[in-house]
Amino acid sequence: MIILKIGGSILTKKDSVESEIDEGNLKRIASEIKSSIDNSKKDLVIVHGAGSFGHPPAKKYKIGEPFSKEEYPEKRIGFAKTQNAVKKLNMLICDALIKEDLPVVAIPASSFITTTNKRVSEGNLDRFNKFLEKGYIPIIYGDVVLDNELEMAVISGDQIIQYLAINLKADQVILGTDVDGVYNKNPKTHEDAVFFERFSSLDDLDTLEGTTNVDVTGGMVGKIKELLYLADLGIESKIINADIENNVYKALENEELKGTIISKN
Amino acid sequence: MIILKIGGSILTKKDSVESEIDEGNLKRIASEIKSSIDNSKKDLVIVHGAGSFGHPPAKKYKIGEPFSKEEYPEKRIGFAKTQNAVKKLNMLICDALIKEDLPVVAIPASSFITTTNKRVSEGNLDRFNKFLEKGYIPIIYGDVVLDNELEMAVISGDQIIQYLAINLKADQVILGTDVDGVYNKNPKTHEDAVFFERFSSLDDLDTLEGTTNVDVTGGMVGKIKELLYLADLGIESKIINADIENNVYKALENEELKGTIISKN
Repeated sequence: MIILKIGGSILTKKDSVESEIDEGNLKRIASEIKSSIDNSKKDLVIVHGAGSFGHPPAKKYKIGEPFSKEEYPEKRIGFAKTQNAVKKLNMLICDALIKEDLPVVAIPASSFITTTNKRVSEGNLDRFNKFLEKGYIPIIYGDVVLDNELEMAVISGDQIIQYLAINLKADQVILGTDVDGVYNKNPKTHEDAVFFERFSSLDDLDTLEGTTNVDVTGGMVGKIKELLYLADLGIESKIINADIENNVYKALENEELKGTIISKN
Repeated sequence: MIILKIGGSILTKKDSVESEIDEGNLKRIASEIKSSIDNSKKDLVIVHGAGSFGHPPAKKYKIGEPFSKEEYPEKRIGFAKTQNAVKKLNMLICDALIKEDLPVVAIPASSFITTTNKRVSEGNLDRFNKFLEKGYIPIIYGDVVLDNELEMAVISGDQIIQYLAINLKADQVILGTDVDGVYNKNPKTHEDAVFFERFSSLDDLDTLEGTTNVDVTGGMVGKIKELLYLADLGIESKIINADIENNVYKALENEELKGTIISKN
């Protein structure tokens, strides 16, 4: 079974004031997924980020930060708003996937996952297995969830990937981002940026964390840590640029393409 | 705890070609719910129907009818389309409720309920209890679900009510419909139509089923049967006209209003 994550940065327009979908990318990626499934039958789970839909309300209401009892009513509204915003994004994404005749069924994290200090501590995946067994493509996304310590938390697409990959015993994990993979510096501003074709251990990571500007990697360090944990369990993942035409198709078909592989060997 | 169901006929425009929300009714009812909660704190679960969003795809793809293996791919698309259509309706409804500062969290039936021959046979409500405990208003709606016998089925808002009322031990059930309650004949075409203020047993139902045109009741007989089952368990329900201003508020506040009560005594 393959888990394909498409980042929010690919499917939504980061720079727009209003939450806006990137119609072009969405339509293209939906059709690449369809082509791959037509080419060779495969079990697939799709994960998508919250992008410009989920981040603004989650940030505004500081979901995941400690709060006082008096703030609870306001926090609940923030939870509700964030949940509804990512639901809308998911609805638009499902719409595009269904137009390509892909039988996607959404299973929102908020309806079955609980975290403890922002880490998944509960989340029964029977429904994922059932839908997969029946030939559907389960789809899940960055969402808000109840947290045993913090009352509420944001769960990112990347965290969801890790949890699903381990517990559904995924064969392969593909992360569609807006970069080619992992560099030690921002390749747009540094000519001497080194591209990583493969990460196999936390030692490789030192080179990356040693860069003066950690923001360059755009949360990439955290992502790689999660993926190295998967690698340790024998699950290989690949970070690819989903902005480039046919990359999602190629990754799903295991064809050669530029990207960073995170695996044990 | 109160379960409030708002029928799809109230929240969506039945006669429009495209799925369309009834903005006026939605906004008004959202504000009535808010007024009632402001007036007296209460635990609430909201259920809404699928209306003109869910019915067209469910009907087109004959969800819930037996089908051959060859038809499965098409059926899965029907399932996906119906799920996404009711998700859109739910998103719009939540939007209106959140605008009234109501902390609603959606828990879609498709993500946790399984039916067997169209009756709920599995559906863990821990999450409902958790969200209620934390001060949220859980919201659920008519949806598509996996069925152990038929592979897939439609679950109506009315079925959901019954399941929730029993298993969450509801104190009260309110059904907002587009009629005043139950008549033995269509009051618009029959001057001698008798209004039922109360139903207490299946015997009362004979009068209703004895009418020449069962369609007059618009699925009301089935609804009452479900509610009489609840009455037997000590859970009272009331069918009211949510098209009339302040009726939802009055029902939530237990104020007097025209309607049909289904209870044991």
